[in-house]
Amino acid sequence: MSSPDTLARLEATIAARRAADPESSYVAKLNAKGPRKIAQKVGEEATETVIAALTQDHEALVGEAADLIFHLMVLLNAKDVPLADVLAELDRREGVSGIAEKASRPKD
Amino acid sequence: MSSPDTLARLEATIAARRAADPESSYVAKLNAKGPRKIAQKVGEEATETVIAALTQDHEALVGEAADLIFHLMVLLNAKDVPLADVLAELDRREGVSGIAEKASRPKD
Amino acid sequence: MSSPDTLARLEATIAARRAADPESSYVAKLNAKGPRKIAQKVGEEATETVIAALTQDHEALVGEAADLIFHLMVLLNAKDVPLADVLAELDRREGVSGIAEKASRPKD
Amino acid sequence: MSSPDTLARLEATIAARRAADPESSYVAKLNAKGPRKIAQKVGEEATETVIAALTQDHEALVGEAADLIFHLMVLLNAKDVPLADVLAELDRREGVSGIAEKASRPKD
Repeated sequence: MSSPDTLARLEATIAARRAADPESSYVAKLNAKGPRKIAQKVGEEATETVIAALTQDHEALVGEAADLIFHLMVLLNAKDVPLADVLAELDRREGVSGIAEKASRPKD
Repeated sequence: MSSPDTLARLEATIAARRAADPESSYVAKLNAKGPRKIAQKVGEEATETVIAALTQDHEALVGEAADLIFHLMVLLNAKDVPLADVLAELDRREGVSGIAEKASRPKD
Repeated sequence: MSSPDTLARLEATIAARRAADPESSYVAKLNAKGPRKIAQKVGEEATETVIAALTQDHEALVGEAADLIFHLMVLLNAKDVPLADVLAELDRREGVSGIAEKASRPKD
Repeated sequence: MSSPDTLARLEATIAARRAADPESSYVAKLNAKGPRKIAQKVGEEATETVIAALTQDHEALVGEAADLIFHLMVLLNAKDVPLADVLAELDRREGVSGIAEKASRPKD
């Protein structure tokens, strides 16, 4: 039941919980601990994603990749960076890269 | 010009380039080096995201977060994990977590 | 009271505790969880060292660097790699690098 | 030919090269790029150590652990933290932990 809107919904949920009670919300708890703690979680989840990809199964990698994206989105929110800015950067590069790849290919 | 479809488009591009000429495609080059090299890049970009979030500006964080998502998607593709599986897991957790948060709130 | 023997003593302590009761020994507990968990801790402590070096004080960096070295040594022990092999590699490189640096310096 | 003095010698070499010509010294080159770049290398080498420990052989792990220790020492030097402070912290913890472990063991 996932959809292209999953990340937009997740971003809104994270923004809404940021100022919630740290006792009842994990996002609020992370924010109460500050950006260092949130960034640390991004590093941890990346290591777990690396380990899952190289030594575990499909399900483990799905779970760790979800953890990584979730904590990256909490970090972006804590730094007031909209996900749209990151997606726009990916779009921009795909355009640039598409052109670059064409330019570097031998003529056929 | 970003949209909810950015990641879906990026996933298709990565899949298309995976078997391209490593001389002309960065995605093909990473895949030619194998999953260890791709996983290593995910770890590197996560460290750079941590550093950007804590010590650099908005633009740097946008760039590093884009790098992290891009390399995570190359890793998922190399391991034949559809992004939809990861988004579905995020949807599932949001549902579970929403219920958990309600249950833990004092009655009003 | 530290000395050049600190790491040798630490290596012996880790080896001795590896098979201890996981209830009373942190080293035994990590080993009971397996190499993936130990490797994950090395990744986590590296991220914390990065964060401490760039955003915290001397004392924090000392503590995180100690954590990183400790967990690296637990990982080496779990993989039956003597610290002496790593030190020998550092010695070897210093020799190689010394020569390389001399060769690349302009004659005086 | 390694010895307990390897790290002390390495620390002295790093300190000596820090202000050398970045063209001829890797340590000087890293320092010229600043603490962010050095910290980033610590994160990268930690990821490579994790990968080597879980998926590669003895020799690869020795090489990556040496890289990690080397870059950690360049980072400590760049932040003016003597290795002796880190070793003293490890000594201190071993004492504390020894006592803690005894205290938590059932009386015999």
